[in-house]
Amino acid sequence: MDDIDPRWLDDTEQRAWRAFLRMQAQLTARLGRELQADSELSLADYDVLVHLTDPAGGRLRILELARELDWEKSRMSHHLSRMVKRGLICREECPADGRGAFIAITPAGRAAIEAAAPRHVETVRRLVFDALSPDQVSALAEVSERILEQLDSPCRTPV
Amino acid sequence: MDDIDPRWLDDTEQRAWRAFLRMQAQLTARLGRELQADSELSLADYDVLVHLTDPAGGRLRILELARELDWEKSRMSHHLSRMVKRGLICREECPADGRGAFIAITPAGRAAIEAAAPRHVETVRRLVFDALSPDQVSALAEVSERILEQLDSPCRTPV
Repeated sequence: MDDIDPRWLDDTEQRAWRAFLRMQAQLTARLGRELQADSELSLADYDVLVHLTDPAGGRLRILELARELDWEKSRMSHHLSRMVKRGLICREECPADGRGAFIAITPAGRAAIEAAAPRHVETVRRLVFDALSPDQVSALAEVSERILEQLDSPCRTPV
Repeated sequence: MDDIDPRWLDDTEQRAWRAFLRMQAQLTARLGRELQADSELSLADYDVLVHLTDPAGGRLRILELARELDWEKSRMSHHLSRMVKRGLICREECPADGRGAFIAITPAGRAAIEAAAPRHVETVRRLVFDALSPDQVSALAEVSERILEQLDSPCRTPV
């Protein structure tokens, strides 16, 4: 089939990997459904708005936002256009400096995320943190940060 | 803003939650890009084919597959139609028993996943398991399984 000799996952790794994939798919779907039932936002809208409220000034360059969210360019541009139409964000062109347009949160966008946040946090707590011991919360942080470091490391092993 | 008094996340929980969200978004994007570069499959194709090769016989009822993947109905039906057109899977109608059609993997689908699997597993190992100690692998399994149990528990706390 192929010319590489893969290091297949052993039983423990397989168990961890399947549980992780299943958990993240189910958790994302559930968070999205509950958010949508409780507010006017999808999980993707919420992600965009969270990133825009974090930095001072409520705006980010589109490229920076794309890097933060790790979305493909076409998904990014379609999604942002829909959010602009709904009045949650606006584009601020910046022809002077040539480093690309900004996306800024509008007052309506700020109101929407402030209205959605309390219930969304309650959902996250109920589905995730209520289930975990303090040690498991630390382990979740540690494992996530290790994988993020690995994703950031520049080399892709040649195969 | 709202009539509930949410239990906001403390610093440790916040750190864990942000790292987890970021990690899963970046990891999914990266796995998808590498899979697509190394094979003719997207991550979604791969998921469908893995679920079809697992059970004996290489086929599942559409409803069962939808439950396993936790996809919305419209995404499911669009994605499966595209995979049928590409010859990776086929529909097997089952008018007799009234419990819905089956989706089955084709020989081309089986060949595609067998060709893709060695490199995909190597990618998973490089991005995830090479970064983790045995204890961290166990913690990943444990945390994922705890959250899955929580997602399965029937009650939604009234808010």
